[in-house]
Amino acid sequence: MPQVVDKMSKEIRTAAFWRACLAEFIGTLFFVFLGLGSTVTTAADLVRISLAFGLAIATMVHCTAHISGGHLNPAVTIGFWVTHAITPLRAILYIVAQVLGGIAGAGILSGLAAPGWNGGPTKPGPGVMNYQAFILEIFLTFQLVFTVFSTVDPDRKGFTGSGPLAIGLAVALGHFAGIELSGASMNPARSIASGFVSGDWTAHWVYWVGPLLGGILAAGIYDIILAPTANASRLRKCVTCKYDASEEEEPRGDIDLSIVNHAHVADEPKL
Amino acid sequence: MPQVVDKMSKEIRTAAFWRACLAEFIGTLFFVFLGLGSTVTTAADLVRISLAFGLAIATMVHCTAHISGGHLNPAVTIGFWVTHAITPLRAILYIVAQVLGGIAGAGILSGLAAPGWNGGPTKPGPGVMNYQAFILEIFLTFQLVFTVFSTVDPDRKGFTGSGPLAIGLAVALGHFAGIELSGASMNPARSIASGFVSGDWTAHWVYWVGPLLGGILAAGIYDIILAPTANASRLRKCVTCKYDASEEEEPRGDIDLSIVNHAHVADEPKL
Amino acid sequence: MPQVVDKMSKEIRTAAFWRACLAEFIGTLFFVFLGLGSTVTTAADLVRISLAFGLAIATMVHCTAHISGGHLNPAVTIGFWVTHAITPLRAILYIVAQVLGGIAGAGILSGLAAPGWNGGPTKPGPGVMNYQAFILEIFLTFQLVFTVFSTVDPDRKGFTGSGPLAIGLAVALGHFAGIELSGASMNPARSIASGFVSGDWTAHWVYWVGPLLGGILAAGIYDIILAPTANASRLRKCVTCKYDASEEEEPRGDIDLSIVNHAHVADEPKL
Amino acid sequence: MPQVVDKMSKEIRTAAFWRACLAEFIGTLFFVFLGLGSTVTTAADLVRISLAFGLAIATMVHCTAHISGGHLNPAVTIGFWVTHAITPLRAILYIVAQVLGGIAGAGILSGLAAPGWNGGPTKPGPGVMNYQAFILEIFLTFQLVFTVFSTVDPDRKGFTGSGPLAIGLAVALGHFAGIELSGASMNPARSIASGFVSGDWTAHWVYWVGPLLGGILAAGIYDIILAPTANASRLRKCVTCKYDASEEEEPRGDIDLSIVNHAHVADEPKL
Repeated sequence: MPQVVDKMSKEIRTAAFWRACLAEFIGTLFFVFLGLGSTVTTAADLVRISLAFGLAIATMVHCTAHISGGHLNPAVTIGFWVTHAITPLRAILYIVAQVLGGIAGAGILSGLAAPGWNGGPTKPGPGVMNYQAFILEIFLTFQLVFTVFSTVDPDRKGFTGSGPLAIGLAVALGHFAGIELSGASMNPARSIASGFVSGDWTAHWVYWVGPLLGGILAAGIYDIILAPTANASRLRKCVTCKYDASEEEEPRGDIDLSIVNHAHVADEPKL
Repeated sequence: MPQVVDKMSKEIRTAAFWRACLAEFIGTLFFVFLGLGSTVTTAADLVRISLAFGLAIATMVHCTAHISGGHLNPAVTIGFWVTHAITPLRAILYIVAQVLGGIAGAGILSGLAAPGWNGGPTKPGPGVMNYQAFILEIFLTFQLVFTVFSTVDPDRKGFTGSGPLAIGLAVALGHFAGIELSGASMNPARSIASGFVSGDWTAHWVYWVGPLLGGILAAGIYDIILAPTANASRLRKCVTCKYDASEEEEPRGDIDLSIVNHAHVADEPKL
Repeated sequence: MPQVVDKMSKEIRTAAFWRACLAEFIGTLFFVFLGLGSTVTTAADLVRISLAFGLAIATMVHCTAHISGGHLNPAVTIGFWVTHAITPLRAILYIVAQVLGGIAGAGILSGLAAPGWNGGPTKPGPGVMNYQAFILEIFLTFQLVFTVFSTVDPDRKGFTGSGPLAIGLAVALGHFAGIELSGASMNPARSIASGFVSGDWTAHWVYWVGPLLGGILAAGIYDIILAPTANASRLRKCVTCKYDASEEEEPRGDIDLSIVNHAHVADEPKL
Repeated sequence: MPQVVDKMSKEIRTAAFWRACLAEFIGTLFFVFLGLGSTVTTAADLVRISLAFGLAIATMVHCTAHISGGHLNPAVTIGFWVTHAITPLRAILYIVAQVLGGIAGAGILSGLAAPGWNGGPTKPGPGVMNYQAFILEIFLTFQLVFTVFSTVDPDRKGFTGSGPLAIGLAVALGHFAGIELSGASMNPARSIASGFVSGDWTAHWVYWVGPLLGGILAAGIYDIILAPTANASRLRKCVTCKYDASEEEEPRGDIDLSIVNHAHVADEPKL
C-alpha cells in the first residue's frame, strides 16, 4: 500500500500523467462525437452505427494507446484498477476524464447536428426488461474487456496484428449482437453523455453497473483463472507502464532509441 | 500409440489442459451468444448477421488462441485431430466443451431476448435440397479450415497480419456466400445450440456431417497434397503446443521471457 | 532467354511447381464459388456482394500465397509475367488453372443453388457503353495490380500488416466503386466462369482485354516509373521464388528453420 | 532557414522527388475516382459510400506510402508542413499534385459514368448551417490527421498493424459519422474535384478552411501537447525521409539490403 501511495505521489508530478489524462479526455470526446454522429440521421442503419462505434474505438485507441493506454471507457479502467495494473489515482482521474470527454463530445455534436436529433440514448429495446438489459451489458462488456486483457497479455506470443483494431472490432461486434436488445453501450461514459443531450435517463443504472461489473468479471477471470501468470508478468515487466506510456517520461527522444527499441522488441507483448 | 497415451496421461494432470478446455467452453459460449444476438431482430440484415458471426470468431479466437488454440468449432478440432496435432483426449474434451458452450450461449441469450425470437436455426434455404446444403457446408467449412491450417503452418513466412482476424473473415465470407443457401453453419456447436433453443432440428445431420467432413478434407488435402512438409514441421517444432499454449505450463512468468520470446520469434509460424 | 528455358525445364520437374498450379486451381475455384455465392439471392445487396468478393480474395490469397504466390487472377499473373518475375511456362499454366478453377467453382455453385440463379455475369450497367466499361475495367484492375506490386516490393520497409488483406480490400474497393458501372470484374477467370453458367456473354471481350491491359499497365508503371529499383531487387533477391514459394522445393522441414527463418526476416519484403 | 533552402535545392534535383509528386497525383486520382465511383448509383447506400472512401484511402496509402509518404490530402500535407516534417517546396507541389489528381479522377469518372450522375459534391446536409459544417469538418479532419501523426510517431512502440489500414478506417469513420451532416470531405482535393464535375460550389470554402484548419490543429496539438518529443525524434531520426521514401534516392537495390533492413528494423516507427 505505501508503495502505491509512493507511486501515485510520483506520477502526479509528471507531465506524462497529465498528458495521459488529457488523451483520455480527447479520445473519449472523439469516440462519443464520432459514434453518436452516425445516429444523427433520417433512417437508422444498424450496420452503419455498429461500424461507427467500432471504428471510433479502433481509431481512438490507435491514437492514444501510446499516450494513456487508450482505455476510453470506465469499464476498461476499472478492470486495470482491480488487477493493480494502474493506481487508484490514475483510475479515478481517467474515469473523470472519460466522463467529461464523453459529455463534451455529445454536447458539441448536439450543437452541430440538424434539429430533431434524439441524442442516441442507450436503453432496453422493445420487450426487453431492465434486468435482461443489465445482464446483456455484463456479457457484452465482458467480451470487450476480455479482448483488451488478451491484447496486452505480456505472455502472449505470435498471432500478431493491430491491438487497437482487435479492440474496436469487439466494440462493433457488441453492437451487431446487442444494439436492439440493450442498446449495446458497454461504456458508462458513452451512456451518460447521451443522457445529458437527450434528457432520457431510462434505466441509466443499467449502463453503469452492467459495464463496470462486466469489466471487473473479465479482468478477474482472465487474471485468476484463464492466464494465472499474466498478472505477475504484467507487474514484473511493467507492461502497464508501456501500455500507459506515461511512467517512462523523459527518455523519449533523448537516448539512443535504436537500442531501446531493440530491447523492447523482446520485452513487449506480442499482440 | 503408447507415446500418445503417455502424452494424454501427462496433459490431463496439468492445469493448463483444463484451462484450455474452459477457454473453449467460454469462447464458444460467447461466439454463439454474440453471433445469434444479431438474429434477434425485427428486420434481418444479412450483412449484419454475417459480420456478427465473423467478428465473433475473430474476437474469440483472439481471446483464446494463446490459452487453448482457439478452435471453438468441432470442425477445426477434428482437423487437428486427424493430422495428429492434438491428442484424441484433447479433441474429445474440446468438442464436448464447444457443444456445451454453444448450448449455454444460446440458452442465456434465449433468456435475455425479447419474446418471439426464432432461435436462429441453420437449415437449407427455400428451394435448396438437403444434399445440396450438405455439399455447401462441406465447401464452406473447407475454406474455413484451409484458412486455419494456412495460418498455423510453421513453414509459412512473411505476409504477416492477424491470424484470428484472417480466420474470422473466413467465417464472415462463408456467411456472405452461403447464408441464404445452407444457413452457413460451418460449425456443429453453433447448429446444435440453435436446435435446442428453436426446437427446429430440420436436416440437423447436415450441420454435423458437412462441417466435420469439410474439416477433415481441408486438413488432409493441406497436409498431404498442398504443403506436404507442414505436418512434420508442426510435430517436430511442436507448434501445436504453442498454438494450444497448454503444454508449456509453468514457464510463464518464472523465467526470463525476453530470451524465450527472442528464441520464439524465429521458431514461430509467421502468420 | 536460354536462362529462362533452363529455369522452366527445371521447375516443370518439381512437385512444388505442380502443387502451385493446383493451389491456383483450388484458390480460384473457391474465390469464384464464394464470391458468386453472394449473388444467389432474392434481393441483391451491393455491400454484401462487394465484401464477399473482397474477402474471398483476401482469404484465398492468405491460403495460397505461400504455395503458389496467390495470384488467382490472370491480370495479376500477366503483370508478373511481363516484369519477368515468373517464367512464361508458369504464367500460362497459372492462367489455365485459374480459368479452369473459376469455371469449376461456378459450375459447382450452379448445381447447388436454388433454381433461378442468373449466374452473376459481369456486364456494362444500364446506360454504360462497352468502351466505357472497358476503360473502367482498366482503371479498376490497375489499382488492384498496383496494390499487389506494392505489397511484394522487396524494397518496401515498415507499414506492415496483412498483404492478403490489403489485396482483398482492393478487390472490395473495386466493387464498391464500379459494380453498377462495369460489373467490377477485374478478373477474366471470374467473368468467363459466369459466362459459362449464365450463357450471358455480353461484351465478354471487355473482361479479358480490360483487366489484362490494366494489369500490364500497373506492372509496367510500377517497375519502370514509380519504383525503378523494385524489379532488379525482386530478381536479385529472388523474392518471387519466395512469393511463389515454389522454387525452394525440399528444404521445408528438413533443415534448421529457426536459422533459415531468421535469415529470411531481413530478406523478406516487409508487407 | 538556409538549411531548408539547401534541402529544397537538393531534393528538387532528385528523381525520387518527382516520382513522389507523381505518386501523389496518381494516388489522389485513384482515391477520388474510386471513392466517387460509389456515388454513381441509383440508390445511395451510405455504408457503401463510407467504405468506398475509407478503403480507397487505405489502398492508395498502401500503394504510395513508400514512394511519397502517401499524403493524398492537402490537410495531411499541411500538417507535416507546419511541423517541419517536409519542406515548403514539397508541401506546395504535393498539394498541387493532389488537386490536379483529384480533378483528373473526377473528370475521368464523369466521362465513364452513366448520364445523370450528380458529381458527388460535399455540402452541408438538410438543416445544417455552413458554420456547423465548417466546425464538423474541423473535427472530422482532426481525428484523421491525429491518426496519421500517431501512425508515424517514431517513439510509438508495439501495437503494430497496418498503418494505411488504420488511416483508411479513420476516413471511413469520418464518413459514418458525418456524411449526412457536412458531407464528410476531410480533403479539399476531393471537394474541389466534385465541384468541377458537378458545378455545385455550395459553401466550397468550408471544405478548404475546415480540413486545413483541422489538419493544422491536429498536428500542433499532437506535437506540442500530446507527444512533445515526437517532433524532435521525427526530425532527428529523419522518419519523414523514410515516410516520404524520397530522400534516400539511390541506395535502393545497390547495397546489401539485408543489412540495411536489419538496421532499419530498430530505427523505424512501429506502426
